[in-house]
Amino acid sequence: MEIQIILGSKSDMPVAEKTQKILDEFKIDYDIKVASAHRTPDYLKEIVEKSDADVFIGIAGLSAALPGSIAAHTVKPVIGVPVSGKVNLDSILSIVQMPPGIPVAGVGLDRGDNAALLAIQILSVKDPKLKDKLKKYREKMKEKIIKKSVKG
Amino acid sequence: MEIQIILGSKSDMPVAEKTQKILDEFKIDYDIKVASAHRTPDYLKEIVEKSDADVFIGIAGLSAALPGSIAAHTVKPVIGVPVSGKVNLDSILSIVQMPPGIPVAGVGLDRGDNAALLAIQILSVKDPKLKDKLKKYREKMKEKIIKKSVKG
Amino acid sequence: MEIQIILGSKSDMPVAEKTQKILDEFKIDYDIKVASAHRTPDYLKEIVEKSDADVFIGIAGLSAALPGSIAAHTVKPVIGVPVSGKVNLDSILSIVQMPPGIPVAGVGLDRGDNAALLAIQILSVKDPKLKDKLKKYREKMKEKIIKKSVKG
Amino acid sequence: MEIQIILGSKSDMPVAEKTQKILDEFKIDYDIKVASAHRTPDYLKEIVEKSDADVFIGIAGLSAALPGSIAAHTVKPVIGVPVSGKVNLDSILSIVQMPPGIPVAGVGLDRGDNAALLAIQILSVKDPKLKDKLKKYREKMKEKIIKKSVKG
Amino acid sequence: MEIQIILGSKSDMPVAEKTQKILDEFKIDYDIKVASAHRTPDYLKEIVEKSDADVFIGIAGLSAALPGSIAAHTVKPVIGVPVSGKVNLDSILSIVQMPPGIPVAGVGLDRGDNAALLAIQILSVKDPKLKDKLKKYREKMKEKIIKKSVKG
Amino acid sequence: MEIQIILGSKSDMPVAEKTQKILDEFKIDYDIKVASAHRTPDYLKEIVEKSDADVFIGIAGLSAALPGSIAAHTVKPVIGVPVSGKVNLDSILSIVQMPPGIPVAGVGLDRGDNAALLAIQILSVKDPKLKDKLKKYREKMKEKIIKKSVKG
Amino acid sequence: MEIQIILGSKSDMPVAEKTQKILDEFKIDYDIKVASAHRTPDYLKEIVEKSDADVFIGIAGLSAALPGSIAAHTVKPVIGVPVSGKVNLDSILSIVQMPPGIPVAGVGLDRGDNAALLAIQILSVKDPKLKDKLKKYREKMKEKIIKKSVKG
Amino acid sequence: MEIQIILGSKSDMPVAEKTQKILDEFKIDYDIKVASAHRTPDYLKEIVEKSDADVFIGIAGLSAALPGSIAAHTVKPVIGVPVSGKVNLDSILSIVQMPPGIPVAGVGLDRGDNAALLAIQILSVKDPKLKDKLKKYREKMKEKIIKKSVKG
Repeated sequence: MEIQIILGSKSDMPVAEKTQKILDEFKIDYDIKVASAHRTPDYLKEIVEKSDADVFIGIAGLSAALPGSIAAHTVKPVIGVPVSGKVNLDSILSIVQMPPGIPVAGVGLDRGDNAALLAIQILSVKDPKLKDKLKKYREKMKEKIIKKSVKG
Repeated sequence: MEIQIILGSKSDMPVAEKTQKILDEFKIDYDIKVASAHRTPDYLKEIVEKSDADVFIGIAGLSAALPGSIAAHTVKPVIGVPVSGKVNLDSILSIVQMPPGIPVAGVGLDRGDNAALLAIQILSVKDPKLKDKLKKYREKMKEKIIKKSVKG
Repeated sequence: MEIQIILGSKSDMPVAEKTQKILDEFKIDYDIKVASAHRTPDYLKEIVEKSDADVFIGIAGLSAALPGSIAAHTVKPVIGVPVSGKVNLDSILSIVQMPPGIPVAGVGLDRGDNAALLAIQILSVKDPKLKDKLKKYREKMKEKIIKKSVKG
Repeated sequence: MEIQIILGSKSDMPVAEKTQKILDEFKIDYDIKVASAHRTPDYLKEIVEKSDADVFIGIAGLSAALPGSIAAHTVKPVIGVPVSGKVNLDSILSIVQMPPGIPVAGVGLDRGDNAALLAIQILSVKDPKLKDKLKKYREKMKEKIIKKSVKG
Repeated sequence: MEIQIILGSKSDMPVAEKTQKILDEFKIDYDIKVASAHRTPDYLKEIVEKSDADVFIGIAGLSAALPGSIAAHTVKPVIGVPVSGKVNLDSILSIVQMPPGIPVAGVGLDRGDNAALLAIQILSVKDPKLKDKLKKYREKMKEKIIKKSVKG
Repeated sequence: MEIQIILGSKSDMPVAEKTQKILDEFKIDYDIKVASAHRTPDYLKEIVEKSDADVFIGIAGLSAALPGSIAAHTVKPVIGVPVSGKVNLDSILSIVQMPPGIPVAGVGLDRGDNAALLAIQILSVKDPKLKDKLKKYREKMKEKIIKKSVKG
Repeated sequence: MEIQIILGSKSDMPVAEKTQKILDEFKIDYDIKVASAHRTPDYLKEIVEKSDADVFIGIAGLSAALPGSIAAHTVKPVIGVPVSGKVNLDSILSIVQMPPGIPVAGVGLDRGDNAALLAIQILSVKDPKLKDKLKKYREKMKEKIIKKSVKG
Repeated sequence: MEIQIILGSKSDMPVAEKTQKILDEFKIDYDIKVASAHRTPDYLKEIVEKSDADVFIGIAGLSAALPGSIAAHTVKPVIGVPVSGKVNLDSILSIVQMPPGIPVAGVGLDRGDNAALLAIQILSVKDPKLKDKLKKYREKMKEKIIKKSVKG
């Protein structure tokens, strides 16, 4: 398995579905589990330590400790996706403002899609074929945008 | 030992000293350790699980996951003290915005003193003598303020 | 009675219901009153001073002075629950940023449930049976989360 | 006495001095006391209820409950001055975001001078001579600014 | 006429209606006009300078320059009501953070009701009968809240 | 004269000096005056209405009504420069969040230099020689940056 | 063509329609294209460099790099319109806080209308007839507002 | 070369030095250049497109478009480091809130060190020896923290 997705709560699933959609499109093997940094710390540790994934994606809202807690148990790259709520700055800052020594790669609010693309970019460091797929994906994206021009 | 103080980083010591000063004044037995939710998660877990303290105080800045991580390993009350930095809303929101099920008792930015008083208030639930000490402490505080009146 | 819940306004009742649900589950004796720090300060003082509760929970929005005003009239532990509105940082900061000497234990926005759990944790300092109940509650919570894992 | 100034803490004195300077210039009779909404609530109530002042000015930082607590004990106009600190939005929002029924007249961060001018404007509703003094004060202010023009 | 209410935009009318309701209840004479600091500065100046009102209430959203612009043309007390929108901190800070010399009395977001009560408090400085009415109003408010107590 | 610079306060001069430096370099004719939207509204109106400048630059802090007030008195382009202080979001939002109908061109905090460049860009719409000067200026800027490369 | 409007995403069209409405009313020639600073940087550069427009308007949300990227490829004036979303401070600050040397003229959140008016003001520097049209537009706006006065 | 570091401005060098220190310790080959998304967009594009680095690190403050602009020109992983200033939320949100399709891996304010560690984690996906080095680095970090425990 290449990517381990972990959700802080079942309610974060709509954000994870954006991740799934991209990973499916790129035919990347992944697994999704629900595990909370605060409510199931030992289970979370177990998932992280047992996983043979190359990259982790943690998706969480509020005081989003999940990506940081994943990072605490592995030296593999961890991507954090803040989930929107009533405050928003809480999950964004909790994920981004990590202390020195334990980085988390923070992406935008509810950006499960970008977490997937970043994970694929990371995998592409060792798998050049993914780089080609990423370039094609981006080309299609460009074409779609250019077609949208309203006038002229 | 009654209170276990844990600092996310040695640099949080000035905030912890405010805690110590109050606890010493109230003759409360305590211990201080440095342990990071992100850098030493297993050591943190060990400290929390082995401790016979009645109350925990976690002091941390930035994405202050420490108090929440302490709370993840114990059902005892955990007080969180956000430490000031360049953003401030990061540590405040990280400590306060905990998910349902795992509460942290958040006090004000750099308010190590209030963390001590809150811990003593919690201990006083089983030790009525502490309640009397708290009342005397507050009386003295009142007198000091009233004496400060500039005119009249 | 063990816990006195005070609402700043009748409209804060949905948050208090989360508190009630947990306290009922733990069979904790409590009372709920509506009393405003700004509109009924003397009535609030009377409630606080007459109460034989071990712990107070103040639930309020906007410039949420209620938990701080409860704390001004007692040395017992006071938990503050900020209620969401159009700004949100107002109630969070009003509850958390207390001056030295008068702590309030701030929990998350609309987190009436965590206020209940924190209150039970405080009561458990003198009542070890509550500690066991809290552990069982947390075990059930863990099991529920682990069952939610989507794949694998 | 016309104006009662109350400081939440002795450390707020530099802001109160801006108030004093204006009131002295306008020859308004005032009194300054230090009294905390959280640490000396009864003393604060006593000051407010005994005062024959026409207007109150409350100066406080952090979770600045002071002006609101003054307003809770009087139907006279209350002006609130938020004092700057590490967060600033805390004192501003605590003073401005009052619940319906108990208004506070919030002025700018550390604007003890504007609190004095607003108090004088309020007094001028019954004392037309103050209105003339205010007009002269403003005229002088205008002249000073116009003289500052760098070129032309 | 005692109170001149000015709205920055017709769309601020729901907030002004809260003001009207209170003023009607207190039988205070008032007038409401729509005038923008930015779009009709001369008309605004004319309204302010011609008015024989004792107190002005400016209601505006976004970069809410209206209350400050009223204050620029009179030495009478000016109350500012920030109107809610997509940002909220914009109107609150625009109204509260006035420069030295020109105070505005800021009340809470959408708090047209508190603007009315503050205006009546200001009028009561010269009219003691209003003070009695305000006390009765507050008594009724207290009774309503106390009746709301859910249990006990 | 091509550009009229107006400062809300003499203390904003350091920001205006960045504007001057650029305008001098481009040999643009300008005038600087101090005039406050709140303290000298009529003088401000007079300056704006009498000016034959093509572009206005308003520099102000706090509740920075100045650029909006300039715009209220002219249909010429107005550039607003928020000046830094204790809050910063106050001046930025006051300048940017203008109501429909009266635009202000907001530049960054303390960015007197960018205000000058934007003014010159506006003037260049009718004066093609300025466009060439702007291109040369930018070329020099590029060369400076490229020379700074540390390695490689 | 006088004005080139560029949208960061097709979903920003409702904001652009406010721009269109004003430009149509003023009979200004314009073109609208969708081009992303991040997804189609080369296409964006091509549009900007080939355009004979006098003014550019960039409309974008989130980390709104679009207006700054337009400005990077031209010395003509660039107006930036932040589009609202879940955070709002992201697009406002991304557009306003440009580095020294490359100004963007930031207008308010979703203020496509003000972007149009600002663009017309800029064009009016070389075309005096537009100045007359702007004055008439503003007169009509004033009349509409004055007619809205509720009483008196 | 494995890692290309790009600074938005020479003044961001102190943050880049934290990156260098870690990369030197891990004996990773890197290059540092100064190139601005706004002031030297073509030079930036050239650097990115010509680089054979596996990972990019963009370090920038204010409206920090740099990491996003790097990402616009490559499908390789891009790490963004927000640099502190007067607002801080500007650079954090500009870097994190990227649109769908073009991810940036945001790390904390001024966290050049974590950017280096994240880059090494990414490289370790193809180079298992780096994984061992990362584990050793973390072990040393843990030991240092554990030694810091003040008492017990």
